[in-house]
Order: sequence, then C-alpha cells, then structure tokens
Amino acid sequence: MKLATVLIGRKLANREGETRKLTSLEGLPAMGLDGLGSSAYGPEAALTILLPAGAAGVREIGPVMAAVLVLLGLLYLSYWQTIEAYPSNGGAYTVAKENLGQPAGLVAATALMIDYVLNVAVGISAGIGALTSAAPSLHPYTLWLCLAVLLLITLVNLRGTLESGLVFALPTYVFVASFVGIICFGCWRALAAGGAPTPVVPPPRMQAASEAVTLWLLLRAFASGCTAMTGVEAVSNGVSAFREPPVTHAHRTLTAIVFILGLLLAGIAFLAHAYGIGAMDQTKPDYQSVLSQLCGAVIGRGWLYFVAIGSLLAVLSLSANTSFVDFPRMCRLVAVDGYLPHAFAQPGRRLVFSAGILGLSATAGLLLAVFGGITDRLIPLFAVGAFLAFTMSQTGMAMHWYRRLRQRRSIGTLFRLTINGTGACVTICALAVIVAAKFLEGAWITVIAIPLVLGGLLLIHRYYDQAERQLADRSRLDLDEIAPPIAIIPVKRIDRLFLLAIAYALRTSPEIFAVHVLRGDELDARADRHSFRKEWRERVHGPIEARGLRPPVLTQVSSEYRSVAGPLLKLVGELRRKHPRRAISIVLPELVKAHWWDFLLHTGRAMRLRRMLLRHGGPDVAVATVPWTLEEPHPEQAIAEEDPDLAKRAARRGRA
Amino acid sequence: MKLATVLIGRKLANREGETRKLTSLEGLPAMGLDGLGSSAYGPEAALTILLPAGAAGVREIGPVMAAVLVLLGLLYLSYWQTIEAYPSNGGAYTVAKENLGQPAGLVAATALMIDYVLNVAVGISAGIGALTSAAPSLHPYTLWLCLAVLLLITLVNLRGTLESGLVFALPTYVFVASFVGIICFGCWRALAAGGAPTPVVPPPRMQAASEAVTLWLLLRAFASGCTAMTGVEAVSNGVSAFREPPVTHAHRTLTAIVFILGLLLAGIAFLAHAYGIGAMDQTKPDYQSVLSQLCGAVIGRGWLYFVAIGSLLAVLSLSANTSFVDFPRMCRLVAVDGYLPHAFAQPGRRLVFSAGILGLSATAGLLLAVFGGITDRLIPLFAVGAFLAFTMSQTGMAMHWYRRLRQRRSIGTLFRLTINGTGACVTICALAVIVAAKFLEGAWITVIAIPLVLGGLLLIHRYYDQAERQLADRSRLDLDEIAPPIAIIPVKRIDRLFLLAIAYALRTSPEIFAVHVLRGDELDARADRHSFRKEWRERVHGPIEARGLRPPVLTQVSSEYRSVAGPLLKLVGELRRKHPRRAISIVLPELVKAHWWDFLLHTGRAMRLRRMLLRHGGPDVAVATVPWTLEEPHPEQAIAEEDPDLAKRAARRGRA
Repeated sequence: MKLATVLIGRKLANREGETRKLTSLEGLPAMGLDGLGSSAYGPEAALTILLPAGAAGVREIGPVMAAVLVLLGLLYLSYWQTIEAYPSNGGAYTVAKENLGQPAGLVAATALMIDYVLNVAVGISAGIGALTSAAPSLHPYTLWLCLAVLLLITLVNLRGTLESGLVFALPTYVFVASFVGIICFGCWRALAAGGAPTPVVPPPRMQAASEAVTLWLLLRAFASGCTAMTGVEAVSNGVSAFREPPVTHAHRTLTAIVFILGLLLAGIAFLAHAYGIGAMDQTKPDYQSVLSQLCGAVIGRGWLYFVAIGSLLAVLSLSANTSFVDFPRMCRLVAVDGYLPHAFAQPGRRLVFSAGILGLSATAGLLLAVFGGITDRLIPLFAVGAFLAFTMSQTGMAMHWYRRLRQRRSIGTLFRLTINGTGACVTICALAVIVAAKFLEGAWITVIAIPLVLGGLLLIHRYYDQAERQLADRSRLDLDEIAPPIAIIPVKRIDRLFLLAIAYALRTSPEIFAVHVLRGDELDARADRHSFRKEWRERVHGPIEARGLRPPVLTQVSSEYRSVAGPLLKLVGELRRKHPRRAISIVLPELVKAHWWDFLLHTGRAMRLRRMLLRHGGPDVAVATVPWTLEEPHPEQAIAEEDPDLAKRAARRGRA
Repeated sequence: MKLATVLIGRKLANREGETRKLTSLEGLPAMGLDGLGSSAYGPEAALTILLPAGAAGVREIGPVMAAVLVLLGLLYLSYWQTIEAYPSNGGAYTVAKENLGQPAGLVAATALMIDYVLNVAVGISAGIGALTSAAPSLHPYTLWLCLAVLLLITLVNLRGTLESGLVFALPTYVFVASFVGIICFGCWRALAAGGAPTPVVPPPRMQAASEAVTLWLLLRAFASGCTAMTGVEAVSNGVSAFREPPVTHAHRTLTAIVFILGLLLAGIAFLAHAYGIGAMDQTKPDYQSVLSQLCGAVIGRGWLYFVAIGSLLAVLSLSANTSFVDFPRMCRLVAVDGYLPHAFAQPGRRLVFSAGILGLSATAGLLLAVFGGITDRLIPLFAVGAFLAFTMSQTGMAMHWYRRLRQRRSIGTLFRLTINGTGACVTICALAVIVAAKFLEGAWITVIAIPLVLGGLLLIHRYYDQAERQLADRSRLDLDEIAPPIAIIPVKRIDRLFLLAIAYALRTSPEIFAVHVLRGDELDARADRHSFRKEWRERVHGPIEARGLRPPVLTQVSSEYRSVAGPLLKLVGELRRKHPRRAISIVLPELVKAHWWDFLLHTGRAMRLRRMLLRHGGPDVAVATVPWTLEEPHPEQAIAEEDPDLAKRAARRGRA
C-alpha cells in the first residue's frame, strides 16, 4: 500500500475528477505529441519515395505535400464536426458504431487499439534509437532502455492525465517554439533571396535521378506522406479528458495541433524545395534526417540547432504518451459495451483507467521485446491501423450527414457530406497503397492481427452475454424454504481457529456434521484417531451437550488420496439426498494472509478446498469463512485508506 | 487437471507408497549417479594440482588416492553405522541434530541444501558443456539446453522416485560395466607387461616439471581429490525411499556405490601411474580428460571408447537426479520441525514431496540463469557444502559413540569413535583447504550463502512458533453467547446471485442490513438510486414482509472513493458498538471462477473485498460466500478426481 502511494500517489475522490481534467493548453502536450511528432517523419517518408527521381523529385514535394495538407484540412473539419456531434468521446469507435453499426465500430476499435500499441513501441524505440546513435556505448542496452522509458511513462500515466500533461509540456513547447521559429526565419530569408537562399551549412548533394517522375511515384509519395497525419484523431478520442466545457477545449486543442502541424508541413515542403534538401539513405553512415539538414541550412550548427534537434528527439520518444491518454479511454467505451473485460471500465485510485494503461504497457512491452526494440522492424506494421480507423470514422460521419440529408435537405449538410465522403475515399485509397507497398515488409502482421483481435472481442462479448443471461432474473424472492442450513465443518485439530468456527456453526445451524479427515501425511500423523475422539468429547461434545444443544455428529474418514474436498463433497451429496429442500453451509476456519510471506508459509490447501466446494457444491451450498488474523486488525486504518471521507466523518463525530 | 495427469501421472493412494519405493538394485541409479560421476572429476582434480610437478607429480597420485580411499573407507563405515543407527533417514541433518543439537543440525541442513542445488546446476551444465563441445553449433543455446534438461529431470521426479530410477538405470549400468571392464582389462595388461604396458593410443607427452613435490602440493592434491567423494552421503539421506526393510536395501546400495567408486578410483590411479597419464590444461584446444586418455591408452578409439565416454557424459548430466531424490526428503524433515514452509512436508499427487522438487528446480534454474550455464563459474562454489555436511555428520556420529562410551565402556564403541573422530578431523581439514584454495574464485559466495539461508530457516521457525502460540488453545468451547449473527449484505443490483445471497442471509440471521454502494463509476451509473429503491421494495422488501419476516434494512451510500469495503467495515464497527456480544456475518455473492479466463474477465474486486473484510473485520466477523457457477457443477467427477476410492465405493453401492 505504501509503495503504491509513493509511486502513484494518494487515492483520489470522484469529486476530484473535474480538477484532474485538462484545459486546452494542457491538452496540447497530452494529446498533441503524436500528431506533432509526425511532422518529423511524414515529409521525410515522402521525400524518401521521391529519392530515385533526384532533384526533379524534390520539386514535386510541393504538390504532394499540398495534397497531404488538403487531406489534413479535410480531417480537421471532419474531426471538428465529430467532436461537436459526439461531445462525450467521438473516437472512431463511437462514430463507426453509431452510424455503421456495432461490427464497424469494433473494426475501428481494433484498428485503433493495434495502432496505439504500435505507436507506443515505435515512439519509444525511435527515441532510444536516436539516443543510442548519439551514444553508441549504450547500444547493447537498447531493449532495456526502451523498457525503462515504457515503465516511466506507465507510472506517470497511472498517476493521472494531468501529471503526464505537465511532465511532457516543456519538451513540447520547446519543440513548437524552435521549429516554428526556424521555419519562419527560413521562409523570410528564402523570400528575401528571391526563392534561392544561401544555406548556412549546405545540404549534401542530391544523387542523380535514376527514375522519372510518374503518377504512381507521386501516389506512393502521397501515401507515405500521409503518415504525417497519424495522431490527429487523438483529440476526438479523448474529449472526456478535457475540463468543462469539453467541446470548446477539445476544439481549441485540435485547432492548435492541426495549425502547428500544417505550418510545419508546409514550411518543410517549401524550404526543402528552396534549399534543395532531399531525403538520404538511412542505412548509409553519413545519414542526416531532413529536419537536421533543414535546421543546418537555415541557422547553422549553433546551440539553437542542438536545442531544436534535442526537443525533436524528446517529442518523438514521448509521443508514446498520446496512446496512454487515448487507449484507456477507448477501451473503457468498448468494455462498457461488453467487448473487453469489465476491469477496463473501472477507474483506478487516481481516476484513470488503470487496466487500460497496464494493458497497453504490457502489450507494447511484449512487442518491444519480440522486436528487440528496433524501430525499422516495427515501422511497416504501423499506419495500417490508423488509416483503417480514419476510413471507418470518415465513412461513419458521411453516413451521419447522409441520414440527416434524407431527413431534411440542406446545402450545409450536403457540403459536410462531401467533405467526409471525399475524406473517406482518399483515406481508403491511402490505406490500400500503404498495405500494398508494405505488405511483405511486415504490414501482413497487422492485417492478420486485426481479425484475431476482433475475434477476441466477440468471444469476450459472448461470454458476458451468456453470464448475463444466467444472472438476470426478474423473478421475486422465493421464500418457500427458509429453514436454517445444515452445517458441515472439517476439522484437522481442535485449536482456537476450530473453536471459533464451531461457535459460528452453532449460531447459524441446528444440525452440524464435523468431518475429521486423516490424510496420512507427515503433519497429520501425530493426530491419532483415537486420542482425537477423546479430546473431541471433552472439549467440544461435552460443553455443547451441557448447554442443551444438539452436539455435532463427528465422522472420521481416512483419505488414501489425501483429499479433504472429496469426503466433504460426498457428505454434501448424501445430505442433499436426505434433505432435498435444505440448504447446506460449509464452515471453513481460515488463517488470514496479510503479507506475501504468509502465502509462502501456509499451504494453499484452504484456498483450494474453498474453490472446490464453491465450484462443485451446487447452488444451495454456501461456504462461510471464519477468520483468524495473526496480526491485530486495524479497521480504522483500513477505512481511512479505502475511503478518507468516512474516516474524516467518523473523526468529526468523535469530536462533537 | 488433464495436463497434470499427462505430465505427472494419475493421483496415487497412500497404500501405493510402498510399491513406489526402491530396491537396492533400483537405488543405485537413483542415488548413485552423483557418487559414481565423481570418479570422473576427483582423480582429474588431484592430477591437475600435481600438474606443475610433471612426471614426478603423477607418481605421487598413488599415495594421494590411497589417502582418499582411506577416507572413503572411513566415510563408508561411518554411513553404514549411521544408516543402522537412524533407519528412518540418517542424513547429516538428523545425525547432527540428534547428537549436537538443533543449531548444528540446521547448519548441516543448510550446507546440504546449498550443495544439492549446486550439484544440480553443475551436473547439468557439465553434461550440456560436453554436448556443446561435441556439437559447437549448439553453443549459443547452452542456457536453454540446461533449462530444458532441468525441466525434464523435474518432470520425471514429479512422477516419482521409482520412475526416475528406471529412466536413469540404463546409462548408469552401461557406465559401470564399461569402466569396470576397461579398468580391469588395463590392470591385467599392465601387470602382464610388468608394470610398463604399451598404450594403444599413447597419451600426450607430459609437460616438464616447474615445481618440486612438496607436502603442501600433496595436501592440496588430496583436498581436490576429495571431490571424488561428493555424493557418498546420498544413501544415508534417502533411506526412507527404500522398500522394506530399508536398512538392508540402503546398506546394499551404499556398499555397491562405495565399492564401485573405490574400484574406479584405485584403478584410475594405478593406470595413470602405469601409462603415465597426467591432467591437461582445460583451456588449451587439444584438451583431453584423464578418463578419455585412459580409455584410449587401454582399448584405443573403437566403438567401446565411444560407448564408455557417452555413458560418462550421461551419468554426469544425470547426476543432478541424486539431488532430486535427497533434497525433498531432507526438506521434509526440516519442514516437519518447522524450519521450512509446511508445503515441503506434504506429499503431492504422486507421493513425492513436490514442493521440494519444485523448490530445488527453481533455485537451480535461477543459478544456471545467473551463471549462464557455464560449469567453470559454478565449480568453485561447490564441495564447500558437501564437506561441511560431512564434518557435521562425522562429528555427530563421534559424539554419538562418545556418549555411548560414557554409558558403557566397550572396545567396539571405542573403535567406532576412533573411525568417526578421524573422519571428522580429516573432513574438516579438507574443508579448510578447499575454502582456502577456492575462496577468491567463488567459494566466498557459498560462505556468505550459508548464514543467510540459516537465518531464513530461523525466521521461518519464529513465524510458525508465534502462529502456533496464538492458535494453540487448551480451553473448552465458550458457549455464553450463541445468538444468531447479524447479517450484512452488499448489493450492486438485484439479480439471481443477489437473491440467492439474501435467501442465505434470511436462513441464518433474523436481522439483515443491506448496503447499496454507489461507486460512481461507469458500470454502476445505470443503477439509479431512486429506481433501485423502487425495485427493492417490489422484489425484496415486499415478499419478505408478506412472509412475516423482518425485512432487511437498506442503506444507500455513495462512495466518493469507489470503495465497498470502507462502508461495510464502518457498518461493522457501528453494529459492534451497538451489540458488543453479537457475531456478524457478511454475506457475499460470488461468481465462481473455474477457468483462467474467468479470472481475466471478472474484476478481482470480490476477492479483494473478501480479503479486506476477513483481515480487518475482527474476530467475530465471518464471511459467507454464496456461489453461482456459470457452468454446471460436476460433484461426481470432482470426487473421482480427488479420491477415486470414494467414487468406486459409491458406484459399488449404486450397483448393490
């Protein structure tokens, strides 16, 4: 308990939930890291595709990025409308579910879940990859460093969204300030020099063209450039994380993210063209990223260069955090609908959905371990999920407007339908190109994983459905037979624990059957059958008879198979045949385990026995546990830990 | 359950215990592997020490091994007497405990426990080391191969001692037959050639002497040669594994082991001298073990050579098995005395002490993982434990004879005292030399581990002691107050599960308090406070009132901290203040979990709540669990699995 408090913080009350929520200013670092970080790899991915076309290719970056920006604009408008239409979490899951039906919603949810997990793994491994290329001596520890960062992000998120937003605010704002500054300064210089500025540090010479610019090349460049848009959906998935009024805060955060991202993308495209900066082969030793070349060309290799590049690395590796904000929120929605374990719908001690955070962390950790923490192996699996979710969300919104249009014709609705319809078409095309281009490199894993996860969700739903059908009962209470139960009590030796148990049995049942099982093992061998009967008469039977009560019936069984559950279940069966309408209560004394060493030092027999009896006893058999605690119980302390309000109220009453 | 049956076999009855035990013929492979395997490294270790003295050193192997043989003879006599004096397990623990007191016994037990664990790790890693030097492509998988062999040996031992004896019989007897044959043949040829036989394959030339033969060198050679004796104590520790009469069987097995071991050691020493075979530097690439040179010299490199060397490797890697026979038996004795968790004293489904087997396996696995499965790193830790245990056992036996001598003077007892006294002196000297020679190489780890483990044993004892003092109660049953308990029942919603629980509460208690806790989380939000009261009146309150019973008192609490345990514990406190003499029974409905997925799909809240209430409710609070099983219970099947006898008896009665 103490450790949890140190690591995660004190338990929070429901009423503190509102103050734990984000303003739009805090929302940018909490939900924008993924989207903003994309500016680092989106243009670079497009330029990499254009690489074989040489300088002619770089000239085409303008139109390609313009198309990306148009799509970004479409997505912005769409998500603006989505947030408005679904103010309590308008993620792809909700939008697809409401407009296209539950199956479509689950497809979107699955796609997003996979994408969030990949985003965590890719983000962290990219950050650590940059660190280890700066300090090669750390290279053998890549995986351990990745897992350490994962653990850190997990802990920060278990503490709560507010904290994680604050922790990640500094690198985010440094990144935004430095890159927006550098790009504006670069554009001003380029325009001042009539479109042909002199670079401070000239970018490396571009290689000669080996391919002509074709439409297919431009399409592929566009599809790769689309990775710049991953993370834009984050705000719509996390509306409930914002403070009142959530729609306003969400709109502001979305606008800030898209505006900054658009500015960065447009600026990078313009400057790449103006300075003649192309992508470089990442496998070559003199590799430099596009943003590194760009910063060098505009401002040289001064301290500002290192601040900008440093903040970029931080943003990349912390972009995993966006998933930690959204994944648990989406899982909660899916769990409330019964497609994920109920634990995902329960707020933890810090009012975050701990099961989602831990699930995300475990899955991403597994993925990092399997792929050894190497980014290049993970990247091809990525973006499939994001674009599938975009498509589902856009199609859902298009259906939304289409239905409204059929109710009432309006030019505004038609316009909105056009936006979302176009968006859906473009994102599905981009998805097809991404899958086709990356299938053999690893996208097949995602393509296989989606139906598997989907199947899992459906199985979970079937399970809950069946359980609910059994438990739901609209009948009134049946009180035909409310005779006290017959009690059964196993006895090993007559000690304080057993005396407590028999006292409980006497309180609740007029008929008691005690079963002394001799298991023939070392610890029991001392308890001799005969001497036990003598002790029984003296210490149990006698006092009960003297009090005028019906004494327990003692039977002694020697179990050749060292089983206590077997003889007890057999007795239950016999009693049920004799008294078919009577309930049976099995009384088990239990040494309460409070510490981990208690579990090591006591055998699990009592627990196993209880489970066997509950599982196979039948519906009219209850198991009553009579506890003995080796350490003093501290109810006041327990109440204070569980619910500080109750403790405070009790203290106030005490003073009054 | 099915998987356990396939892997480990059906559950065995106590009466099958006798047939599961070993005859002396089966005892040799079960307990002799460790001792016989020692012949491979004992003489080699002595020759390695003599290496710097060159050919002059090899000539001294005769006297050194003669001393070892004398000590072996002493140990043989001592253990023969020990088995006779302690027919129900006369291991070092018992002998030291009975004659020198509990602390000495615990020291011996600790030393043996550490030695057994090391024996497992060293044996397996030596075997796998030999395998990977034969097939270098397997080298990267050393650790995994070690762990696979460990798993296999563990499973075979969980099936039972009898099976493990049978599985390991073949390599043992092949080893004994081939080496005894080779050595006899070699001796015959050497004697026929007048002490200077011509080798079939000449051993490599010995290096020139760099040191003179000194007494210290001879002492160190003797101490190293003493490792040939590790494993001799195995039989005395495992007497209870033998069939009736155990002493006779144990004596026979001990004699067979010591006789064969002595023959091998004497033969190896004689032939090494006759053929001029010395140890070689193990780090050099052309390294050959002493036994390999010897076989080559006597019979050449034919198929018999490969059979002999192959059986040697098998014996080495399976010598771990000896620990699996003895470690659990010794741990049982220590656990019965309350110095190890009780689980170590409980026979498992196959009548072996599963906790000991699993504990040994886990510790050895950890050791293998930490040391990467490399033998050389483990060897220096070894033998310290064995010789400490020898010393404790010999000293204990000496004390045994000394006491008897003081009671009645007898020349036989004096002779026995002399044997054991000498044995104790020699083994303690050997121990001192081993620790001194190997301290920095790793023996320090063992020297530190012994007090740590010892401290652990004492802490465990203190725990059990305190628990026992609380539980032991010689008083009679107190029946002053046996009014029915007050029932408390938490309610989430009115479903079948809750109706069962309230029916149970009505059967056992005249007063019931129902607590409806609104936790303010997603899954509960639907249950509105007001509509719940309406449903309660209709489906619960109404029928109970109509039946003329006192209806439950319903309180609704909204818990800002989402805690159910808090409000319940508070109510317990209030009721206890009002009715200090009344017992309280908390009735919890529980969805019984039968499969692993049940645990994933249901939150652990019910379990946590039960534990909190048991831990902090106080001694007069019992927790009654009313179960609902999602799947049909199968009591007959459960009884048949738990205790086949009961099922058979029921079936017979059914037929009659």
